[in-house]
Amino acid sequence: MNLVLLLPEDFISEDQVKLTGRRAHHLLTIKRVILGDILLVGQLNGQQGQGRVIAIEQHSLLLTVILDTPPIAPLPVHLILALPRPKMLKRILQTISAMGVKQLSLIHCAKVEKSYWQSPWLEPNKIAENLFLGLEQAQDTLLPQVTCYQRFKPFVEDRLAELSTNTRKIIAHPGQGEHCALVLANKRTIGAATPTITTTLAIGPEGGFTDYEIALFEQAGFKTCHLGARILRVENAIPVLLGQFI
Amino acid sequence: MNLVLLLPEDFISEDQVKLTGRRAHHLLTIKRVILGDILLVGQLNGQQGQGRVIAIEQHSLLLTVILDTPPIAPLPVHLILALPRPKMLKRILQTISAMGVKQLSLIHCAKVEKSYWQSPWLEPNKIAENLFLGLEQAQDTLLPQVTCYQRFKPFVEDRLAELSTNTRKIIAHPGQGEHCALVLANKRTIGAATPTITTTLAIGPEGGFTDYEIALFEQAGFKTCHLGARILRVENAIPVLLGQFI
Repeated sequence: MNLVLLLPEDFISEDQVKLTGRRAHHLLTIKRVILGDILLVGQLNGQQGQGRVIAIEQHSLLLTVILDTPPIAPLPVHLILALPRPKMLKRILQTISAMGVKQLSLIHCAKVEKSYWQSPWLEPNKIAENLFLGLEQAQDTLLPQVTCYQRFKPFVEDRLAELSTNTRKIIAHPGQGEHCALVLANKRTIGAATPTITTTLAIGPEGGFTDYEIALFEQAGFKTCHLGARILRVENAIPVLLGQFI
Repeated sequence: MNLVLLLPEDFISEDQVKLTGRRAHHLLTIKRVILGDILLVGQLNGQQGQGRVIAIEQHSLLLTVILDTPPIAPLPVHLILALPRPKMLKRILQTISAMGVKQLSLIHCAKVEKSYWQSPWLEPNKIAENLFLGLEQAQDTLLPQVTCYQRFKPFVEDRLAELSTNTRKIIAHPGQGEHCALVLANKRTIGAATPTITTTLAIGPEGGFTDYEIALFEQAGFKTCHLGARILRVENAIPVLLGQFI
């Protein structure tokens, strides 16, 4: 937790917050904060700044906060991701949130097992929990928007054009297209203040998209790129690809 | 398992192997291979090629193999990594192996808990197991060399100069130095046949190297670089940084 994320219900006045639960527990037992400590804090979907610990009880802390700094610039990427298996979803949500993606579309496709859509990790409060952890790790405050599309064809045929309009469209697929470093070269916007989304990036499931699915993406204007000769797990392909934009 | 890694003890003749245990179980129950199937195979530290299934028993398979293709080019990076906590070590070993690192030094430093060095995941056979999984994922055969250095100062003062001789020396550290994309720009060797190690890359623990440790690395000729404003977990910083070389 490199930033303490403040939720609307934490505010007891305009400049005072009371922290309880997980965050209080972490600050008191792991970080071992004491009275007078200054912490990096940030308001969910708002500014960040400093919080000063002014009271400590057994399971809560009181801070006065000054929120005067805008959040870190988002990554200019809309990520379309085949729904990962539940075991991985939790960690991948944290990764995506920490790396600054603000628009995530989780989609179905042939190699996503239908049962994955029943995962409790897809409940909105569980998704939010893991996105919070990513924001706290990366010192960010802007919550990513996550949308689920449980049917592949309606997504690709009816929604994809609109969602990816005016962006570069890239789909990562082992062994096809150009090397991602060439496709994405010089597309960084280091230090850009508030980049809008410039790239729509699609990443398939373990086992990849099918040829049919790739063809539908290509019809929608997507260009395939690969990550070299090695086939990476999705959990590694995501930071490798998003790392091209940081 | 995108490649079946063949160990010396698998060979029952020059061109026949008998697979048992984990690999046989995976091929029979997950991949559901049948007689006559052709599989991508590779000899540990040797060539890769094709294996044809010629017999199946309850817990084993017999393949005839032709090994005529050299392995994928290694990543030209010697990775120096602060020993991750045991829970992460297993997965990080798989990642490093899959991404093509062939020289890994695990080191101690201030923010590595001493108890981590007692982890059963550091036993040589456990390390090898996880490196094998990474090779199988990435379709590689060359086993990384892993060396452990349990004392920081002797490592940095007595070994580091020799280990990093004739390479670029980079240490990743949040908030310091130049952006890694600038430091590492144009250093890819896409498609290079057999790159030798050109870069020594050091990555700290969760919580980072201390200023004192950074200073010692800098005295040894290391240049600090950062990954932008976001602080990433080690498990994500590794693929982001190694991704600059693939």
